[in-house]
Order: sequence, then C-alpha cells, then structure tokens
Amino acid sequence: MELIFLGTGAGVPSKERNVSAIALTMLQEQNSIWLFDCGESTQHQILNTSIRPRKINKIFITHMHGDHIFGLPGLLSSRSFQGGDDLLTVYGPHGIKQYIETSLQVSGTHLTYPLKIIEITEGQIIDDDKFTVICKKLDHGIPCYGYRIVEKDKPGELLVEKLKEAGIHPGTVYQKIKDNATVTVNEKTIYRKHYIGPNKPGRIISILGDTRLTEQNKLFVENSDVLVHEATFDDSKEKLAKDYFHSTTTQAASLAKESNTQKLVLTHISSRYQREDCKQLLIEAQGVFPNTVLAYDFYRMTIHPKK
Amino acid sequence: MELIFLGTGAGVPSKERNVSAIALTMLQEQNSIWLFDCGESTQHQILNTSIRPRKINKIFITHMHGDHIFGLPGLLSSRSFQGGDDLLTVYGPHGIKQYIETSLQVSGTHLTYPLKIIEITEGQIIDDDKFTVICKKLDHGIPCYGYRIVEKDKPGELLVEKLKEAGIHPGTVYQKIKDNATVTVNEKTIYRKHYIGPNKPGRIISILGDTRLTEQNKLFVENSDVLVHEATFDDSKEKLAKDYFHSTTTQAASLAKESNTQKLVLTHISSRYQREDCKQLLIEAQGVFPNTVLAYDFYRMTIHPKK
Ligand SMILES: [Zn+2]
Ligand SMILES: [Zn+2]
Repeated sequence: MELIFLGTGAGVPSKERNVSAIALTMLQEQNSIWLFDCGESTQHQILNTSIRPRKINKIFITHMHGDHIFGLPGLLSSRSFQGGDDLLTVYGPHGIKQYIETSLQVSGTHLTYPLKIIEITEGQIIDDDKFTVICKKLDHGIPCYGYRIVEKDKPGELLVEKLKEAGIHPGTVYQKIKDNATVTVNEKTIYRKHYIGPNKPGRIISILGDTRLTEQNKLFVENSDVLVHEATFDDSKEKLAKDYFHSTTTQAASLAKESNTQKLVLTHISSRYQREDCKQLLIEAQGVFPNTVLAYDFYRMTIHPKK
Repeated sequence: MELIFLGTGAGVPSKERNVSAIALTMLQEQNSIWLFDCGESTQHQILNTSIRPRKINKIFITHMHGDHIFGLPGLLSSRSFQGGDDLLTVYGPHGIKQYIETSLQVSGTHLTYPLKIIEITEGQIIDDDKFTVICKKLDHGIPCYGYRIVEKDKPGELLVEKLKEAGIHPGTVYQKIKDNATVTVNEKTIYRKHYIGPNKPGRIISILGDTRLTEQNKLFVENSDVLVHEATFDDSKEKLAKDYFHSTTTQAASLAKESNTQKLVLTHISSRYQREDCKQLLIEAQGVFPNTVLAYDFYRMTIHPKK
C-alpha cells in the first residue's frame, strides 16, 4: 500500500500546495485505489502521477468544505471520458449526493460507469474480505469525518518443520491443512491451529479530516500504523486553531504520541507558511512525536506489511 | 485591452492545455477584468499570471458543459478569501444559477462580496457608457452562447489648426467646445461638429463558445477586430466535428474570412493533438485566413485601439 499526497494545502490553492486530496493505492492488495477528499484540480495533479482514474473505485469525503470537494465533478467526468466502466462509490457527509447530482445534471454529464453515493453517519461503512473502514465525526464545526482503514489479519504460515516431525510430508495435503480447521491424515485428525504460526496482523491507517484535538479522536486512531492528520497552524496559534476548528503541529503530534500511533503524517498546511517555515513546523511536531513527516504535494509513502 | 488565454483545451485537461477560460483585461479602460468560461483549475492558472481575482467583475459562461464551468465555485470562493468586496456578475445559460447556488450552499461558502447571477437569453445583455455586449445562441446541441463585445466609439480629436484659423486660440475654451454641441465664442456660435475629427471607432471582440459553423454565426461576428473561435478538430474531421457540434480549423477560418474579421484566434483544441500537430492545425487555418493564431495556455494578445 502506498499513500500519495495529491494536495496538502488548506483552504485555497497556492503555487506550492494544492487543496486536499490523498490517494491510497492498494494495487497489490486489490488492484484498486481509494481517494480521500477531492479538492479542485485533483484530476490535474493525478495527470502528474502514475494513477489511472479508472482504478479509483472508492472516494471518501471528509467534509463538504470547497477545498475538499470542488474537484469531484471534474474527476468523475474525466474518469468517464477515459473509459472507466467499473462501479465507483463515493462516501461523504450529507449534501454530497445533492452536490454531485446537481453538478452532473446541469453539465449534461452522462457517466459511462455506475456511481453510488453513500451519505455516511458514524460507524462501520465497509467490511469486505480484506478491509473494514470505520468513520467517526470529528470536531470541525460542520459534519466532518475521520476514516480508520483496518486491513484484516492474514493467517500465519504453515509450521512446516513441525508437520514433518509429525510425519506429514509436503504435498497437496499442506494446502488442505491451510484451508480447513481439521483434516484427517493417515487416520489421524490434524488440527490446523497446531500447525500454523500466529496471524499476520493487518495494517491500520487513520486519515482524519479537518479537526480540533479531542479525546475521542485519540481513541479512534489508537494503534494506527499511519495517522494522517491536519496541521493547519504552527504551535503558537493554538487559539486560532481552536477558533477555526483546526489543529496545530504539536496538537497533532500529541494525538499521535498518546494513541500508540507508529507514524504521523502532517498535511493541510496553511498557505501562510512558506517552504522555509515548514521545516520549523516539522521540528515542532517532532519535538513531541519524533516519527513525524510533513507531507508535500506528490509526497509518496509506502506502508509495508507488518512482520 | 488584452486577451489572456488561461485554458485552451477541449473536454478534459491535459498536461499541455487546461480546460476553457479566457480573460479579457480592461484595466486601462475601466480597471476591471472580464472572464469568459471558467473550467476547473482556472484559479490555479490565474496564480501564474498577474491577474488578481478581485479585479474580475464579470464572468460570461458560454455553456454548461463541465469543462467550461467546473472552476466557478472555487474561483468564487477564492475571490472571497482574498478579500474581494466588489460586485461580481455572472452571465450564463439556464442552470448556471442552480449550479452556483448549490455549490456554495452545500460547501457552506459565504462570499464577502455581492454576487449577481443572470441567466441569459439572446440579445443585448450589457450597455454602459463604454461597452455593449450582445449574446447569441450558437449550434452546440445544448444552449451555448457567443459574446460580441463592442467598445463604444470615442469622439475624435479637436481640429486645432482649423480653430486657430477661425481665431479661437488654445485655452479652457477648447475643453468647452469638446464638451458641448455649441459654444458661443466672441459672440459667434461655434458648432462642435465643424471643429472635431471623425469618431475614433471602438474595438469589436467576438468570443464564441463551442459551435458548428453556421451562417448566423457569420452575421453575428461581422467586422470583429478579434474573433476567438473553437477549433476542436483538424480539417479532415469535418464529419466528426458535425456529429459532436464542433468546428474544424478551416471552418473557423472560413467564418473569419467571410465576416470581415481582422484577426482570428483558435482555441478549444482537442487533447488528441500534440504540440507538433498544432503547427499543422495552424497551417490549415492560415491557408484560408492568413491572419490566424493558435492559442496556447498563457498566450497573451494585446488589442490596440484603432487609429
Ligand atoms: Zn480544509
Ligand atoms: Zn467544450
């Protein structure tokens, strides 16, 4: 899995940073890409990556502010233009359906693929054989969601040495043991649980929309391998962050620290900060939570499977 | 006056060309900028020019296809963010009001300036002391308009030599003669019309939305100093152009030729054409109408006052 940050700015686009969008590529896992938010010009950013819009099969919108949604109609249209025909599902807060449907209708856009729009409330929104996704309301003045993507654990490896010691030698029987709780071999019942290593734990990625720091957010992101969190303001602007329902660098870092998160990625950086200021922003956060990076447009981060 | 081409592609953005938008700067004439169409990422293109969004006081939409309107909500929001407080008027076909109002409402966008949205039908839509603007339906399958911007004639120069010969010498009286139809000087009635040169004719700029070639379009653009016309296809694709309600290079050129147009600018170039193909597109058009240019993103063209 890889995170590709397509837009890492806040509010309005600047020459340095586009407005919000993050791709989570799961090409090996399930040959698809998920998109989190879709600010204006996300499709233009995608032109400069290897992402093919038809591979995007789910889009998750955190909230309805323009810098998170105004790229949706264009991306949906272009995905059609480029011959996408697989189902696309958009998850987002109330209003997303009206916005998309009005935009497509007034522009006479007829999509070549089925589009499903799901207006979410809190809870589990996806549960398939590989992933569950849970969403939770944050603290941003308007309904704004965080998404917790949990990869399901995979069964461990067969304990080949132990099987051999029990006189069971390699062959088709090994696959049978893997696939069944019990198998009869040489008139003996073999229990899989005795011959299989511990589960390989799945990865946990939490991607939050704009938010203030809250205790509830801490519980929601607990044990994340990667936490993507906004840092609209620097440490000195805690009052401003509170007034505008945003977070500072150090608030984001303290959330990571107190939630047993492995790695923190800061994004949604106000356009008031120039490139040289961003070093300082990162230092502030790393002072609280060392394993922090500050995203920039086109920053890519591989999320390796756990050992 | 200057035309700044912000997006010169058709349908979908490419790395070479963004979707449609053209700025007509009238900073000397009336300290404002007019925008024609506003495809997605127009505000991003503007970041790379000297255009300040707050100077844009009129936006004219040719038609409701996404590549001509999906940049509107973002531009309107950013104009607000950057502290615009002057009235902005948007002219466009039916549906433009619903589109803008829905986008602003669902995104919770509160503009800092008054916004007027006028759904147009054919005819004169502006008539102030400097300009008239007339719009006309083209042939594009859905309602699509062309705009004819006519600068009003300015009075000619005072004929100073003739005034001196008549014994009227330079002084405040010259301004009086300029400002009034008749003035009494030395007990004699002076008729302005006898002492003023011919009117300085205003400039005429025609900017058409997507269209097939029609006889009516020819009448509408007659005597333009500059005609901005789409050329979605090359000369060999006349059938395709007709089927999709577009024009070829040579059709656009023939319209310019037969309408006493002075200069033709081709835009709305299909993304199928690479940079090297565009030379050929231009050669085709120039074969019919030599004074043709083919616009590219950020192409600027000064429109000088007439002599
Ligand atoms: Zn935001
Ligand atoms: Zn078009």
